[in-house]
Amino acid sequence: MFICRVVGDVVSTIKNEHLRGHKLLLVQPVDLDGVTAKGESMIAVDKVDAGPNDLVLVNREGGSARQLLNNAKIPVQAVIVGVIDDIDIPV
Amino acid sequence: MFICRVVGDVVSTIKNEHLRGHKLLLVQPVDLDGVTAKGESMIAVDKVDAGPNDLVLVNREGGSARQLLNNAKIPVQAVIVGVIDDIDIPV
Amino acid sequence: MFICRVVGDVVSTIKNEHLRGHKLLLVQPVDLDGVTAKGESMIAVDKVDAGPNDLVLVNREGGSARQLLNNAKIPVQAVIVGVIDDIDIPV
Amino acid sequence: MFICRVVGDVVSTIKNEHLRGHKLLLVQPVDLDGVTAKGESMIAVDKVDAGPNDLVLVNREGGSARQLLNNAKIPVQAVIVGVIDDIDIPV
Amino acid sequence: MFICRVVGDVVSTIKNEHLRGHKLLLVQPVDLDGVTAKGESMIAVDKVDAGPNDLVLVNREGGSARQLLNNAKIPVQAVIVGVIDDIDIPV
Repeated sequence: MFICRVVGDVVSTIKNEHLRGHKLLLVQPVDLDGVTAKGESMIAVDKVDAGPNDLVLVNREGGSARQLLNNAKIPVQAVIVGVIDDIDIPV
Repeated sequence: MFICRVVGDVVSTIKNEHLRGHKLLLVQPVDLDGVTAKGESMIAVDKVDAGPNDLVLVNREGGSARQLLNNAKIPVQAVIVGVIDDIDIPV
Repeated sequence: MFICRVVGDVVSTIKNEHLRGHKLLLVQPVDLDGVTAKGESMIAVDKVDAGPNDLVLVNREGGSARQLLNNAKIPVQAVIVGVIDDIDIPV
Repeated sequence: MFICRVVGDVVSTIKNEHLRGHKLLLVQPVDLDGVTAKGESMIAVDKVDAGPNDLVLVNREGGSARQLLNNAKIPVQAVIVGVIDDIDIPV
Repeated sequence: MFICRVVGDVVSTIKNEHLRGHKLLLVQPVDLDGVTAKGESMIAVDKVDAGPNDLVLVNREGGSARQLLNNAKIPVQAVIVGVIDDIDIPV
């Protein structure tokens, strides 16, 4: 899992039928500070009711996604699986 | 899924038999602004009838691709699964 | 497997049920010197009782993770599978 | 699939038995111009009889490779699945 | 498969049981010149008895690794599957 920030969502009227009924959010991987963008943003299925600007745990792997969503045909890799309350880095 | 821009297509006379009959488009991953290129372009199978310059949702994973295309032998990872109407980023 | 440094952990009250009861640590891939950060940090399940600042072996792949953790639905890719005592680079 | 240029081959006398009898070529991912190198070169199994300097379609994923080559044990991810005649980018 | 240079090994007393009895080497992906480091170093299981400074073929994918090593639970992605005698790049 990776730390991401929820940055928005996408509106897509024409889409694969398996994506219908799923809440899709646009997430941006961030650095340990929880702020600095790092790597490619992506569209994730939200399974924990996250909101805009939430810091979230995102799992990125097709096999897990299909298992989690109980759908062998859903074309998704990224799933939001947790909301982060705190990043704890001892110094 | 990732946000990509359709940039063109490739002409390939000699190719794997499982690729025949599929519409292949050349897509370029883009940043949240929907314009700035980011990372490697790739060839994707189009399942939603996208056109040149469309902003699209692209799924990149072999397992999903084989399921979506109902073909366990198709050598494809990227599939266009949606056309994006709008990217909504609250500030 | 990759060489990572344990840098902290994340507190997440809302999370996927399959993640409960697993020790999650925040790890940062490092270079051959064992110090220089390299690439994205990630959250890994700890299977060898590693501690803060430990240099660890991290496996990053969903298929292995599900096998190792005996749970086909756990949304995890990274698993700490060893604690490194020494990196030996002959010159 | 990605656009690559065939740049050469590798000679390997000691190798895994499942690799014997396969034509291996060294390919370099290239940019949309078909020339600029982009990312890591890799060794691919050739299934379309490509030659030096050909621009080719390369599929990079272990699951597809094992299916295409009808061998569950072949340690290969990249397979050349097409020869590109033309990259068509409307402006 | 990718071209890597064997750069050393790691000593790990606490480790996953499935890793015991396997020879683990630290490898660094290199460029077409066989020398310039490129991307992240990793720990690979050696199946061809490679030695320090050898240029090797490394397969990086969990599915292949588990098949090659006949162990569905081994937490490994990278396997050394060949020793490279020569990289041949016609000009």
